[in-house]
Amino acid sequence: MNVLVINCGSSSLKFQLINAESEEVLAKGLCERIGIDGRLTYQPEGGEKEKSDKPMPTHTEAIQYVIEALTNPETGVVKSLDEIGAVGHRMVHGGEKFSSSVVITDEVKKAVAECNDLAPLHNPANLIGVEACEKLMPNTPMVGVFDTAFHQTMPEKAYMYGLPYEYYEKYKVRRYGFHGTSHSFVSKRAAEVMGRPYEDLKTIVCHLGNGSSVTAVMNGKSVDTSMGLTPLEGVVMGTRSGSIDPAIMEFIAQKENLDIEGVMNVLNKKSGVYGLSGGLSSDFRDLTDAMNAGDKKAKIAMDVFSYSVAKYIGAYAAAMNGVDCIAFTAGIGENDDYVREQVCSYLGYLGVDFDKEVNDGLRGTEKELTKPGSKVRVFVIPTNEELAIARETLALVK
Amino acid sequence: MNVLVINCGSSSLKFQLINAESEEVLAKGLCERIGIDGRLTYQPEGGEKEKSDKPMPTHTEAIQYVIEALTNPETGVVKSLDEIGAVGHRMVHGGEKFSSSVVITDEVKKAVAECNDLAPLHNPANLIGVEACEKLMPNTPMVGVFDTAFHQTMPEKAYMYGLPYEYYEKYKVRRYGFHGTSHSFVSKRAAEVMGRPYEDLKTIVCHLGNGSSVTAVMNGKSVDTSMGLTPLEGVVMGTRSGSIDPAIMEFIAQKENLDIEGVMNVLNKKSGVYGLSGGLSSDFRDLTDAMNAGDKKAKIAMDVFSYSVAKYIGAYAAAMNGVDCIAFTAGIGENDDYVREQVCSYLGYLGVDFDKEVNDGLRGTEKELTKPGSKVRVFVIPTNEELAIARETLALVK
Repeated sequence: MNVLVINCGSSSLKFQLINAESEEVLAKGLCERIGIDGRLTYQPEGGEKEKSDKPMPTHTEAIQYVIEALTNPETGVVKSLDEIGAVGHRMVHGGEKFSSSVVITDEVKKAVAECNDLAPLHNPANLIGVEACEKLMPNTPMVGVFDTAFHQTMPEKAYMYGLPYEYYEKYKVRRYGFHGTSHSFVSKRAAEVMGRPYEDLKTIVCHLGNGSSVTAVMNGKSVDTSMGLTPLEGVVMGTRSGSIDPAIMEFIAQKENLDIEGVMNVLNKKSGVYGLSGGLSSDFRDLTDAMNAGDKKAKIAMDVFSYSVAKYIGAYAAAMNGVDCIAFTAGIGENDDYVREQVCSYLGYLGVDFDKEVNDGLRGTEKELTKPGSKVRVFVIPTNEELAIARETLALVK
Repeated sequence: MNVLVINCGSSSLKFQLINAESEEVLAKGLCERIGIDGRLTYQPEGGEKEKSDKPMPTHTEAIQYVIEALTNPETGVVKSLDEIGAVGHRMVHGGEKFSSSVVITDEVKKAVAECNDLAPLHNPANLIGVEACEKLMPNTPMVGVFDTAFHQTMPEKAYMYGLPYEYYEKYKVRRYGFHGTSHSFVSKRAAEVMGRPYEDLKTIVCHLGNGSSVTAVMNGKSVDTSMGLTPLEGVVMGTRSGSIDPAIMEFIAQKENLDIEGVMNVLNKKSGVYGLSGGLSSDFRDLTDAMNAGDKKAKIAMDVFSYSVAKYIGAYAAAMNGVDCIAFTAGIGENDDYVREQVCSYLGYLGVDFDKEVNDGLRGTEKELTKPGSKVRVFVIPTNEELAIARETLALVK
């Protein structure tokens, strides 16, 4: 069955068409500037990338162009819509309502909309994507795969904040965590690579990208994760602060004459390694170049980042009373050998016997980074959220 | 030399008179409700505790009553002011200006006042105490001992937040840490008890009281600590939230119709285990009783607290790439065997071989909590900030 995987933002939409049995990507692409003007990028497997300006006043037109591209007699990869068996939608926030993927019904859409205030930028956009697909493919089953679902196994001690209990009861203020599809995919793959039962392992997954999160996976279940109510919490990120002293918000608000919204804007968009590097870049390649050229702030940004990841690994080793395996994934985790080496430089005490030679220059390849006999094993495991969504979708509709 | 140790708050003042050579406490007490009406509690060593209402419109009158009590012919412990060789003042925030204790001069007072906006509740009160003493004891040397000084050895990677670098340059926004006098005292004592050089040890001190902080002390230096710009950050505390997703502040502000100040008030005074337990209590004895009686929220509060301490221990083991010794101190750390057992239940992977029998019921006594041969050793080490201040003071004025 071919599954169309959709990741819909407020003005953009990423897609992949995947043969869910063979796990082959048939085509992929991106709609941008939806509601502004509109641009489609489309690439069939093994073919050329095509870019074209298309009027996209709403997401419905965007999906229409995606379908046209996929069924185009020359560059398309299927003959008709009939060859798309299901659509898998990435959904950001399922609150406490969804602990696994679901076939989308009217009740599901209602329940997702009830989580809108937990993810005001993402959930409404996800639902718009669902409804645009429903309009154009009314007979095709749709599945929702939630970023938060994998983390719904966290125990109370991990998801409760030290806040008035009534905030949990009234507003569901708690840790949810994100990147769940990736953490689930990578931790499962790590078990396969190790040849050990997923249910018996203690794994720490470091999903390090523009947004970064670290997750403790024990016996196949997420037991703690660094992102929280929102994706702002946790390790230092590209432009996001990660965890800070909450009192800093009041301090900055006073000093810079900002309201809460203004401070939140700084914490989300002007902070992280971008802020630490004095606004140089949120891209680790730029920071590495600058650091190697002697830029002191770029070096601090890299050091703070690696140190913050290492401390989460340490914290989660305590949370699980041990760790068998650490997996690096996503843009930085898969590609930045300096960051991986720095992070692992803190972990000798756990029994990580790091293989610097294997690590050096390794980019985007599944590989073990520890020497034979290392007590704790470290891997690069490339993530594939689209494939994970296609698998979940297939499992629910086949 | 007798040292008068003063810990001065905005409406209260704690004092001890200590013979700094013999380290004997000669008398101690407390002035309360300064600026309201005034009450003095005074207790000479081995004598009865006396409480008396005294008009204290300002701190000067409060100090005057303290001196009268200390020199009172019947219950006093010295004959005259001449027998008080120095005054040691606990100062909360020394910013980046003070990395050790100092003899107080006009320049020092000016520098402390420049840190006022980093500790607006504490530093002005500390300075009022200094000036009241100067007025009444103009020829007695005064020493300032800063809560932040011990942590000034932290490396950049530990004290820099993932925020715009200019906030550090313009406003000195960074991690400072607190309870430094206690962390220093306890980590030094741990080295003595272990019979190992302070300069060779990796120690994690858990100062768990109404305010709690955890510190990583490596080779005699603080290298990281859980409190930050202010004492709000870090582990869950009595009424303080500790670290939360910063985005929660905006979320709560909207839901509860609060401004930043209102949210800060909740985070400082209505959160922590008090908030988690549904407003039951911030006192761990009450929470333990409630938990034992089946109260579910009290149990969650205790679990969240212990878990958050354990995760800091794990993080700091990574920060130091190992740990030799863990020390519990302060009200909860010295007295709450349940919390200590819970925290240590996470730490088997580090090589903590916990001795439950020794721990059970142990209160306020210096004691090892691990079995012989335990790879990482765990201790209860009662803190004594007043004695530490007296020692620092003696060292600077003798």
